[in-house]
Amino acid sequence: MTLDRARRPGPTVRTRVHEVTDAGERSREDRLATEEPLEIRLGWPGAPVRRVWVTMRTPGHDFELAAGWLVHEGLASTASIHGVAYCTDTDLAPEQEFNVVTVTLSSPPLKDPGHRHVGQSSGSSACGVCGKDSIAEALAAPVSGRWPGALPASDVVRRLPDLVRERQAVFDRTGGVHAAGLATADGELLVVREDVGRHNAVDKVTGARVLAGSSPAEACLVVSGRAGFELVQKAIAAGVGSLVAVGAPTSLSARLAQESGLVLYGFTRPDRCVRYT
Amino acid sequence: MTLDRARRPGPTVRTRVHEVTDAGERSREDRLATEEPLEIRLGWPGAPVRRVWVTMRTPGHDFELAAGWLVHEGLASTASIHGVAYCTDTDLAPEQEFNVVTVTLSSPPLKDPGHRHVGQSSGSSACGVCGKDSIAEALAAPVSGRWPGALPASDVVRRLPDLVRERQAVFDRTGGVHAAGLATADGELLVVREDVGRHNAVDKVTGARVLAGSSPAEACLVVSGRAGFELVQKAIAAGVGSLVAVGAPTSLSARLAQESGLVLYGFTRPDRCVRYT
Repeated sequence: MTLDRARRPGPTVRTRVHEVTDAGERSREDRLATEEPLEIRLGWPGAPVRRVWVTMRTPGHDFELAAGWLVHEGLASTASIHGVAYCTDTDLAPEQEFNVVTVTLSSPPLKDPGHRHVGQSSGSSACGVCGKDSIAEALAAPVSGRWPGALPASDVVRRLPDLVRERQAVFDRTGGVHAAGLATADGELLVVREDVGRHNAVDKVTGARVLAGSSPAEACLVVSGRAGFELVQKAIAAGVGSLVAVGAPTSLSARLAQESGLVLYGFTRPDRCVRYT
Repeated sequence: MTLDRARRPGPTVRTRVHEVTDAGERSREDRLATEEPLEIRLGWPGAPVRRVWVTMRTPGHDFELAAGWLVHEGLASTASIHGVAYCTDTDLAPEQEFNVVTVTLSSPPLKDPGHRHVGQSSGSSACGVCGKDSIAEALAAPVSGRWPGALPASDVVRRLPDLVRERQAVFDRTGGVHAAGLATADGELLVVREDVGRHNAVDKVTGARVLAGSSPAEACLVVSGRAGFELVQKAIAAGVGSLVAVGAPTSLSARLAQESGLVLYGFTRPDRCVRYT
């Protein structure tokens, strides 16, 4: 089966909507953020390909999403990712042909990815706790080295969300997606990614670095929403030095950041931010 | 084992934070929304209790969260929920004793909840796609009757998010939680619930109705955030007539709403709202 590029979904779709005000109702064209399922499959030498995850996501940078998710989950390292490709399984419905990605590792995964082969798999979602087998597994702190470099000063931190926002092309058109960005201590943005799922946006940022052969560890990860526990887990797994959120952290995210030496900022605005660690 | 009420986590926790402005840094006390894992276990006559889900959630209304999630997933009906209790498993770590809820059904679940017994379970997260076995399962439309009653007029719709906001006690203290509410066609709010996970807030609303012996089907479900696919799935499973979101819908949520006859509103403000179906 060859992939039909014309079927490939874009990050937004056009739709007709009805805007209702006191003055009445008018019909107009609008754009919605595209949301489609992505199934990630994993293979390595000598083992059958297996499904490891299903998430709803905004199409685009799918290979990065898959690679970043595997690294955040502790299943793969930058060095072990041999290839990423859209699946050409002839059983796939045509409208799903860009919704299944297979990652091939050069060696077995760093831990058990689950024992479900294709056809008998397990899926999950836009949130990092997915597929965890118990409370203990859900709460596990990722293992990673601490960021050894400089951290952004607070005036740099307070500028970062606006810098990310300036690069949010899909948000501009839909108002309906989250963003994540990776920045140096000087506030230089290295990569920005968008997605309907805020966890996916973070996976894509790490995946972009990994697929470019770079380390995902950097001074600062910036997220457009809140900083829940799973985002702190991903930041630690990526090895970043600080997490800057526009929204609030939670009790558990602040605790994990504290224990792991991750510097955590919330309610970040140009004139003010709050440091939780 | 008896449950120690003093250990029971509240919806917020106090913490010391550092607020940073151009004027410098000051330390003050702040409140964070509590985030803790909740494991849901399911039992019915003649079957061993099994784990079916792990989610990060804000403690409070845990029984409602469990009951509502089971109804949204199509695993239980209002009539089949026999009891809900915190687990008193002696193997549980003391700090987890309010984080495990067992729901007992009076008859087997309406579909296979997964075959993982306690000790060999599967978990997932704050998003409704969790634990799905494939793209096909993730995309499945819930089966429910259409809401047969009146729907709110657009001026009522535009007032609803502010009415929900007025009842958000945890948001007032933390700025970090989502809310969901169930309203009649006249705009009377029947129940409002908050949670760090927006899907959990919707589960709690349905669960509150179910545990009170009422139908979760009503004219209008209101959510404080965006209306992603999983929220539309839950609204349809609950049998509500319309979904009113403060934020944007996605391509997939608008399509599912259209196909299921759910009236979907987004970008809802006092002066304006957008109808997508």
